[in-house]
Amino acid sequence: MTESVEQLQKEVEFQLSQLDFPQQPESLYDPLRYMLSLGGKRIRPVLVLLANDLFSGKRENAMPAALAVEVFHNFTLLHDDIMDRAPLRRGKPTVHQKWNSNIAILSGDAMFVKSCQLITQTPISAMPAVMNLFLKTALEVCEGQQYDMDFESRNDIEIEEYLEMIKLKTAVLVGACLGIGAQIAGAKEEEVKHIYDFGVNLGIAFQLQDDILDVYGNEQKFGKQVGGDIIANKKTFLLLSALKNAKDQTAIELQQWLAYDGADNASKVNAIKNIYETLHVKECAEKKMDELYAEALSHLDALPINQERTAALRKLSSMLMLRES
Amino acid sequence: MTESVEQLQKEVEFQLSQLDFPQQPESLYDPLRYMLSLGGKRIRPVLVLLANDLFSGKRENAMPAALAVEVFHNFTLLHDDIMDRAPLRRGKPTVHQKWNSNIAILSGDAMFVKSCQLITQTPISAMPAVMNLFLKTALEVCEGQQYDMDFESRNDIEIEEYLEMIKLKTAVLVGACLGIGAQIAGAKEEEVKHIYDFGVNLGIAFQLQDDILDVYGNEQKFGKQVGGDIIANKKTFLLLSALKNAKDQTAIELQQWLAYDGADNASKVNAIKNIYETLHVKECAEKKMDELYAEALSHLDALPINQERTAALRKLSSMLMLRES
Repeated sequence: MTESVEQLQKEVEFQLSQLDFPQQPESLYDPLRYMLSLGGKRIRPVLVLLANDLFSGKRENAMPAALAVEVFHNFTLLHDDIMDRAPLRRGKPTVHQKWNSNIAILSGDAMFVKSCQLITQTPISAMPAVMNLFLKTALEVCEGQQYDMDFESRNDIEIEEYLEMIKLKTAVLVGACLGIGAQIAGAKEEEVKHIYDFGVNLGIAFQLQDDILDVYGNEQKFGKQVGGDIIANKKTFLLLSALKNAKDQTAIELQQWLAYDGADNASKVNAIKNIYETLHVKECAEKKMDELYAEALSHLDALPINQERTAALRKLSSMLMLRES
Repeated sequence: MTESVEQLQKEVEFQLSQLDFPQQPESLYDPLRYMLSLGGKRIRPVLVLLANDLFSGKRENAMPAALAVEVFHNFTLLHDDIMDRAPLRRGKPTVHQKWNSNIAILSGDAMFVKSCQLITQTPISAMPAVMNLFLKTALEVCEGQQYDMDFESRNDIEIEEYLEMIKLKTAVLVGACLGIGAQIAGAKEEEVKHIYDFGVNLGIAFQLQDDILDVYGNEQKFGKQVGGDIIANKKTFLLLSALKNAKDQTAIELQQWLAYDGADNASKVNAIKNIYETLHVKECAEKKMDELYAEALSHLDALPINQERTAALRKLSSMLMLRES
């Protein structure tokens, strides 16, 4: 396996562009094509292919499932965008904005069906196991999204609950991509388990990195307004840690800023960043992230596989974890 | 196969009540349980079981798929209710009304995942074929719903397009239920095709019956306001036939009533019923319905199966076609 991650991304992009959707009804399939054309790093399908390579599987056996996870991921983005009333996705109008909510609901449904159909194109020796892992994961992603919505109106969220939520909402799919690639290559059950656990831990660590970058990222590279989570009072790992650790005057000040409804966002961001500093919240998040990343790598190390062969996966992981955006 | 349709309905109802959904998150799974508790005739799962019986399949092999089609059907109702902004379903508040639209979207998604999971519980000898037919049908149902929404804003719908729409939106699922039952019992491909075509034709005929009953049904037995389609200018087979056949003064009068925005619904219903009578629209719909029903039965006759064994299916079909509500 000497192929670079970039080559795999290109291959996935090409195969996605070759997916054949019906022309009619246009109002069902155009949004689906549009959503898939918005781009993205195609990390999830690349993970399927890398895991399949790792266990010496044939590329063509894993391609339908690789495309399936990307179509599925885009289905969840499509429905999430409706729920979040998001106007933009990758800088372009969201489907419900460009068309309408009804079309977004229904083309999302069709997209999910399509992803299942792609899974059924997996060679039959692996298909039932792949389908089971895929559907289990799909249900968990729904659960994660529901917890995320529930959390908006709750003020008693424990950090452990938050970690469980991001695990379900994003990390289990990362694990499933790797597990599915391994299943298709015919890996043993305990190997599938290790590569899955590698992915889940990596996925949670990645999400914590996202929480950190939202506050401390390089604005140019991060590509969105730094401090957005703070302005929106989003219950991230950072805010939950601060809420847990703040005492006396700091706790009062934090609550005041959370209740602040003025227009001076810069002051709010600065004030809360100061509180985070007092409470060493960033270090706390980085510590958790490092632990999760180490736990992830320990599962990779546990595989009876020459370290060289895991190079591409390790490189991709460190790229994901060392990013500034 | 001497079991009555009523017994099968009871068995399905019991098995549905035994489905084990997680407790948490409540806001995801409560709506799902609620939707399934609203009742209904459970015709679709009964069709799966009847077709499986017809080809001497074991009941327990077909039960997961029978439950799957009912869960899937309820998923489509849940999402359709959001799109139609329907306040009531079987006399009870719809999910988006009782909770909210976001919860309705997401619990619908979870319900679809659940239906696929039930399909995977089909014995492996039949599972891939059953899954393929199930997913193909699911995509067609999305297409049918999209055409139905598209038709609302179109004024040039041909009768053939309308028939294709109701075929996709409701009839292919009836066919798929029967096809799936036959597949699980190990029926030959041409047998599966015949029982599928029986179901599709029956499904379209059933939907035409629905159009007719909305205008000419017994109000008490029909359970909803007779003439509702006329009041809403719904583009049913009857209205499309009238629009196609109306000439001169009748055409002008029809257009005037379609443009009517007064409150005297009774006069509108009466006037349009009179136009239908002039144009023999009811007879035209009944003729089409009878043709489709005959076509359906011809596929049942084509099966190399003792007529006695098809008795339950024939009885259920005639019950569906001779209903007054």
